[in-house]
Amino acid sequence: MFASRPAVHPVEAPPPPPPADPAEQPRGVLMKDLPGMPGTAGGLGLRLAQFAFAAVALAVMASTNDFPSVTSFCFLVAAAILQCLWSFSLAIVDIYALLVKRCLRNRRAVCLFAIGDGITAALTFSAACASSGITVLIDNDLDLCSENHCASFESATAMAFLSWFALSPSFLLNFWSMASG
Amino acid sequence: MFASRPAVHPVEAPPPPPPADPAEQPRGVLMKDLPGMPGTAGGLGLRLAQFAFAAVALAVMASTNDFPSVTSFCFLVAAAILQCLWSFSLAIVDIYALLVKRCLRNRRAVCLFAIGDGITAALTFSAACASSGITVLIDNDLDLCSENHCASFESATAMAFLSWFALSPSFLLNFWSMASG
Repeated sequence: MFASRPAVHPVEAPPPPPPADPAEQPRGVLMKDLPGMPGTAGGLGLRLAQFAFAAVALAVMASTNDFPSVTSFCFLVAAAILQCLWSFSLAIVDIYALLVKRCLRNRRAVCLFAIGDGITAALTFSAACASSGITVLIDNDLDLCSENHCASFESATAMAFLSWFALSPSFLLNFWSMASG
Repeated sequence: MFASRPAVHPVEAPPPPPPADPAEQPRGVLMKDLPGMPGTAGGLGLRLAQFAFAAVALAVMASTNDFPSVTSFCFLVAAAILQCLWSFSLAIVDIYALLVKRCLRNRRAVCLFAIGDGITAALTFSAACASSGITVLIDNDLDLCSENHCASFESATAMAFLSWFALSPSFLLNFWSMASG
């Protein structure tokens, strides 16, 4: 038995490979902390601002008695109602997520929020633009403000634009995190 | 020399770790092949469609003699001019990239394209909405089509909407690749 015996030499185990899932990279962790995302206080503030502006636009426009004679103003009322419902629902979701400290960053929820935000943003913006076209026509081009509720029409249009301004950061942040998450 | 000699056993080298840079993941490579991105034939087609629709909207609206009396129609003309210039410039950039087979996916260029697309898309869409508000008011609410160029106004508005439809995929793809690239 002069032959060398096969011996088992302890070999250091190779270090475990780094996690390959891109969702676990630090980039995703950074995105979670951006204010304005759903489930944060900033996101809740944006939702409440959207709801408030859309509700004021709806109230001001509905307080005039002759808005049904113009199609664009009816469209504005419809878009403001939809915007109110959407923002109110998402504000409740945000409040729930803040209370139970749950993160809303799963892929399906973000996708749903981004699509819904995109649709309501397009509707609110188009209604506000159509109404502002009519308002400018009545006020500047035809000078018919004496027999119309120009002030009410203009403030409702401005409120709809403000609601859209508050909605667009929500949409962009959701779309961004849908693309990068 | 009966003691067992220390022997060197060949040990398989551990496989090289996967590249940790998220920009080098297959996700980025997949995105490069999406049709409609800048520098692809689909992107060039989208740019040419935007340019053609905006040019037709501009020509039809400018062919009526009474468009300057309505502010929204002037806004539509201005937005169509801007849209034409932007889409034409980017079409030239796309043709250049296709001819020299250069990839346009560096971060600065995509960022610039996304911001420019967003601004022109917002302008074209708002102009189209404002014009459609006026058109619906003239045609449906007031029934004044006999003394106005309703057909021209309506086709110019429709062309502006079509130009926006061709622009929005460009914007969404650029924004997506800005967020994920």
